[in-house]
Amino acid sequence: MNEQALRETLTTLLRLFYAKDWVSGTGGGICAMAGPGRLLVAPTGVHKEMVEPADLFAIDPATCGVIDAAANAALKPSECSPIFAAIVRKRGAGSVVHSHALDAVLVADLAPGDVLSIRRFEMLKGLKGVGNADDHAVPVIDNTEREPELTGAVEAALKDPRFAKAHAILVRDHGAYIWGEDVWEAKRHTEVYHFLFEGTWTRR
Amino acid sequence: MNEQALRETLTTLLRLFYAKDWVSGTGGGICAMAGPGRLLVAPTGVHKEMVEPADLFAIDPATCGVIDAAANAALKPSECSPIFAAIVRKRGAGSVVHSHALDAVLVADLAPGDVLSIRRFEMLKGLKGVGNADDHAVPVIDNTEREPELTGAVEAALKDPRFAKAHAILVRDHGAYIWGEDVWEAKRHTEVYHFLFEGTWTRR
Amino acid sequence: MNEQALRETLTTLLRLFYAKDWVSGTGGGICAMAGPGRLLVAPTGVHKEMVEPADLFAIDPATCGVIDAAANAALKPSECSPIFAAIVRKRGAGSVVHSHALDAVLVADLAPGDVLSIRRFEMLKGLKGVGNADDHAVPVIDNTEREPELTGAVEAALKDPRFAKAHAILVRDHGAYIWGEDVWEAKRHTEVYHFLFEGTWTRR
Amino acid sequence: MNEQALRETLTTLLRLFYAKDWVSGTGGGICAMAGPGRLLVAPTGVHKEMVEPADLFAIDPATCGVIDAAANAALKPSECSPIFAAIVRKRGAGSVVHSHALDAVLVADLAPGDVLSIRRFEMLKGLKGVGNADDHAVPVIDNTEREPELTGAVEAALKDPRFAKAHAILVRDHGAYIWGEDVWEAKRHTEVYHFLFEGTWTRR
Repeated sequence: MNEQALRETLTTLLRLFYAKDWVSGTGGGICAMAGPGRLLVAPTGVHKEMVEPADLFAIDPATCGVIDAAANAALKPSECSPIFAAIVRKRGAGSVVHSHALDAVLVADLAPGDVLSIRRFEMLKGLKGVGNADDHAVPVIDNTEREPELTGAVEAALKDPRFAKAHAILVRDHGAYIWGEDVWEAKRHTEVYHFLFEGTWTRR
Repeated sequence: MNEQALRETLTTLLRLFYAKDWVSGTGGGICAMAGPGRLLVAPTGVHKEMVEPADLFAIDPATCGVIDAAANAALKPSECSPIFAAIVRKRGAGSVVHSHALDAVLVADLAPGDVLSIRRFEMLKGLKGVGNADDHAVPVIDNTEREPELTGAVEAALKDPRFAKAHAILVRDHGAYIWGEDVWEAKRHTEVYHFLFEGTWTRR
Repeated sequence: MNEQALRETLTTLLRLFYAKDWVSGTGGGICAMAGPGRLLVAPTGVHKEMVEPADLFAIDPATCGVIDAAANAALKPSECSPIFAAIVRKRGAGSVVHSHALDAVLVADLAPGDVLSIRRFEMLKGLKGVGNADDHAVPVIDNTEREPELTGAVEAALKDPRFAKAHAILVRDHGAYIWGEDVWEAKRHTEVYHFLFEGTWTRR
Repeated sequence: MNEQALRETLTTLLRLFYAKDWVSGTGGGICAMAGPGRLLVAPTGVHKEMVEPADLFAIDPATCGVIDAAANAALKPSECSPIFAAIVRKRGAGSVVHSHALDAVLVADLAPGDVLSIRRFEMLKGLKGVGNADDHAVPVIDNTEREPELTGAVEAALKDPRFAKAHAILVRDHGAYIWGEDVWEAKRHTEVYHFLFEGTWTRR
């Protein structure tokens, strides 16, 4: 996929996720690698279903420095950029979705400590490397007042061996980060995790 | 944004809110300032998703007098006009949404007195001047038989110091008024409050 | 509205109601008066969101006899025709919607006898002649094995003075018939009642 | 319907079912007979709402052997093919839908043994040969680690006399297979069963 097609795909996915109430009220976001050292990220503080391909920033995931700004000078890159970049670096993710879905908040309420256990769902097979007989452990971290302050806890979760098979991190009272090796796997993992979040809290 | 573009935006938002079940059965409405002393308001008693740009009235928010009637002579301005005008005058709002969402009714049921307390949601940051660690107080007023009779209670809530950071008023058994400094902030606040209403009553 | 426009409106409403899950699985239906003694009714046993304007039958509401069959000879008029015709005759309705919404089934479960009482909703004002302080009584009748067998109970409810202000009849385990003086009032009443059904059973 | 029209219908239905959250995260699928010994099946592991008519495989339901591969050489036929083929052979189905709906999972949780009993719903009449006074028995089988391993239990359920009137099999923690004599009956049965699944678990 060339960069223009990727930009169009990212904005199409934002509209899809908005329709599902995962990125309402300007919340949430998305990013994807457009090439080595080049991460496209959505702007912050804007209605996500209205983001246009030219509104995306290109940043360097090693430094979070802006390579190419959005065409509209009033835009700023997503506040999640340090977290997006950490997930790209530590897990080799090609794309990360930041969801503000209520189901992510509600399912995290059920996790007493720092882990949510998901089991007994065929849909677990929609996660790379996970089977439907697995007890799938998803890290749950506490929210912070500013989004970049989450980065330390995100990095700790990414290297925690308990979560080696997780493709998501839940942030209590907040939402989730969900990733995949490319934008299509990130979409699949995003849909699968939201199904699992809703299913797990509805079952309890 | 020129007035024609604003009229088109308001009718687009009515269709969006209808799709979310916030203005069904001809309920609810929207208004926005088109310039000094010129407030565009939707007509009353009509299917809100079918309102056309030329169907909006221009009224004077100081007097609620009609400046420009809708093109269709059968239409009347929204019954909420005195409330819309009060919110514009007292809070400097540029746009107000009147929601008939069931979630607004259900969450008000949980508030024993005249205040709903919302806390522990990242989405609180989607409200101007509010942080995710705040205990956010939203006024709750009792419903009346006719909509203009709500105006006194609305005005009292607007000047109550407990609600200085609120951008919404819940009306018991009825819905909510939600505002912002312009139509885009009103849209963002509307989506954020509906998330918070649903999240708060689902958590309890 | 001329008959062709009315036919197009009826099929548009079927698609809208299908999107809301009120006429799924070929269930439910709609009718409207196209002139004196001429009632347009949807065909039976077909996917309601796929009904085309030429697929509607014109029947005589006094006799249920077919005046003009659908263009497609494979179609049959709705099984609800005797009930539609009774509501037209006894209440002067210009349009009747038959809903198969789950909310209608669930709210009827809450009614121990033959009446559902709805109160404390501003949305009650969306029903002609009803105020938000009213205790609104909706008749609830038992289901029968074949739809035309409901006609007797429907007619009894229509003339019962307790239900003089009702614009709907709930059929236990089945759904609801909802009417208005024309197709737009029937649409408004349909949306209002579904809001009230969902709100009433969610509150309990 | 010629084969090209059938291919287009199948992909349209996948988009519809995706919008209803029945085939999210690449889960679920569909098949239909295009002629004697020729079963069209959706590919596996792809986003189902993006499947194009040329992406479908034609297989032999007697052997599950591929007759015509998808135009795109990267695609593989659905993992459900042996189950689809068994339902076609044993029940004479012309089309089978595989749903990954959460409602199917939740309702199966309510069935203590190998049968879910559904009763007191008018919508039961939407199933061929079933009346609204029936106590409708749907088989529930346990999930397995790989989808083809379900085939034995599916075949046993298909020949179990208790389930002679069932047009669906629930797979615990997984979803459902739902069929009809052609693609339109399969669509109707799919919508009806999802209504009944949601209604049954919500009532309890």
